[in-house]
Amino acid sequence: MINIVTIGGGTGSYTVLSGLKKLNNVSLKALVSMADNGGSTGGLRDELGVLPPGDVRQCLVALSEHSDIVRKLMNYRFSEGKLTGHSFGNILLAALEKVTGDFSKGVEIASEILKVQGDVIPITNNKAELLASFSNGKIIKGQVNIGEANFQKFGLKKIFYKNKVEISKNAKQAIAKANYIIVGPGNYYCSIIPNLIVSGFKEALKKSKAKIILPINLTNKHGQTLKWNVSDYVIGLEKYLNKKADYILVNNKPPSKQQIKRYKLGEGSGVLVKSDLKDERVLENALISHHLTTFDKNDKRQHARAFIRHDSDKLAKCIEKIIK
Amino acid sequence: MINIVTIGGGTGSYTVLSGLKKLNNVSLKALVSMADNGGSTGGLRDELGVLPPGDVRQCLVALSEHSDIVRKLMNYRFSEGKLTGHSFGNILLAALEKVTGDFSKGVEIASEILKVQGDVIPITNNKAELLASFSNGKIIKGQVNIGEANFQKFGLKKIFYKNKVEISKNAKQAIAKANYIIVGPGNYYCSIIPNLIVSGFKEALKKSKAKIILPINLTNKHGQTLKWNVSDYVIGLEKYLNKKADYILVNNKPPSKQQIKRYKLGEGSGVLVKSDLKDERVLENALISHHLTTFDKNDKRQHARAFIRHDSDKLAKCIEKIIK
Repeated sequence: MINIVTIGGGTGSYTVLSGLKKLNNVSLKALVSMADNGGSTGGLRDELGVLPPGDVRQCLVALSEHSDIVRKLMNYRFSEGKLTGHSFGNILLAALEKVTGDFSKGVEIASEILKVQGDVIPITNNKAELLASFSNGKIIKGQVNIGEANFQKFGLKKIFYKNKVEISKNAKQAIAKANYIIVGPGNYYCSIIPNLIVSGFKEALKKSKAKIILPINLTNKHGQTLKWNVSDYVIGLEKYLNKKADYILVNNKPPSKQQIKRYKLGEGSGVLVKSDLKDERVLENALISHHLTTFDKNDKRQHARAFIRHDSDKLAKCIEKIIK
Repeated sequence: MINIVTIGGGTGSYTVLSGLKKLNNVSLKALVSMADNGGSTGGLRDELGVLPPGDVRQCLVALSEHSDIVRKLMNYRFSEGKLTGHSFGNILLAALEKVTGDFSKGVEIASEILKVQGDVIPITNNKAELLASFSNGKIIKGQVNIGEANFQKFGLKKIFYKNKVEISKNAKQAIAKANYIIVGPGNYYCSIIPNLIVSGFKEALKKSKAKIILPINLTNKHGQTLKWNVSDYVIGLEKYLNKKADYILVNNKPPSKQQIKRYKLGEGSGVLVKSDLKDERVLENALISHHLTTFDKNDKRQHARAFIRHDSDKLAKCIEKIIK
């Protein structure tokens, strides 16, 4: 059995896990950021005082062995009445946290109900409020505001937590036992980094013998990583990880014409991540999905969800070659 | 395998089913009223246009093989934010109806997730609005208003549906195959009768060879069945069933002193149902639970839920003697 740990947030982790779960002889543990405070998740967090369920929900759905209908149920967003905008899966996780008195325990029960193959592990059990400080002295609070801030204009100084946010015991154990740790893809500052800056993460990683795999994002984010190339991601992540990556997975197929038109990805826009790193660690493959994303009109945060995604199966195949 | 059908609503059916599910070689089918329009159920019904989930939820929970925590989850009522007062199980059933486009299909999926032993079957797939007409010409609309009306003061003429409400195919089949049909216990006008008046019910029952068992209520309802004796229930139900009952289950143990004090059940209050029927069909046993009900402060309808309940196991034991 090969122990694989994934680190990320919602959509990116969903994509990696959906592919990896089809591989034989792998044990999957998904470490998930707890910094989310937006949309349905943020609403439940504010109103009920629960930990953010959204990213966990996406990982549970990716790893569920259940029928399609249960997956649809988990992602179903109410569009009428007081429940408008809430996804059912988020409500489930919030209720389970209330009933068990413990978010991690709630995630375990949800995993049982949904017949999840693998473990979904909150990176921390502490309530995590993300902060970003800028060169002009300004501080922005909360993942949603940070996600909308223009870092490149104001000059990001530091991303950190307001309170003490410690790595959870389960996350620490998963890292210790891992043979491979996959960091990303996903929203760089809002989904990936929030995992890497929890107290105790670097120490746990330092002790681990796991090889590190970085599936590099396909697109950059306006105001945050615009015009970044592959090397920018690698250098950035290695700084946070305090370790060298072992494998760097880079896409080498362009988006379709339709995708380029729909998402304004034209040459010079700086949105597509360019491959600039020539290094034996770099594996270039066709990893992009040419599927055109359909939007859920009840999802207020769809602007924040990646419109150009990795193809789960292609990404998994590429990872399979490394691990076998 | 002995086929048992129960007919009723929430709390009463929950009690019968919780006991019966422990018996061997029985197949349970719970037919459930769809007339509920109050509380969390009513809110979801109004806001989302779904069929009433509350009574179905209670039957699912009774028949679930899952751990205690899942039962707690299903009955969990949110106490903060926009979700206040809604029970998680009701939200689950509402979401499943939305996702599948069909309430009965949603109940099937919920049964699968909750590992339900038996079938929970809505008595109808039509939206059902209950009406009550009185001797003074007045008509009251909706189960909640009807539940609060003083029938005994104004003289009930008829309980009926506003629209055409037909028996569901699954309910019809269950009745056809049943060896025993258990009617009640439960709120007489609001939980039991709404099942018996759906179009096609009497015809289905007429064709069935099932023996009919009536577990008689322990308490009467103010303004509706106050001062009723066992014979009043039997005569009333037989009129709606258009058939004679085969077994009449009557409790012969008084409530505890604490229960009498707490619920004002003293002699002369007319709340306790008195045994007045001497008939070979009558089986008298100790059926009352002396457990003091604890209330859920987030449940706005607790006044409507029976405070004196049957003991599930004693009731099941009594039924077991009949069927074996």
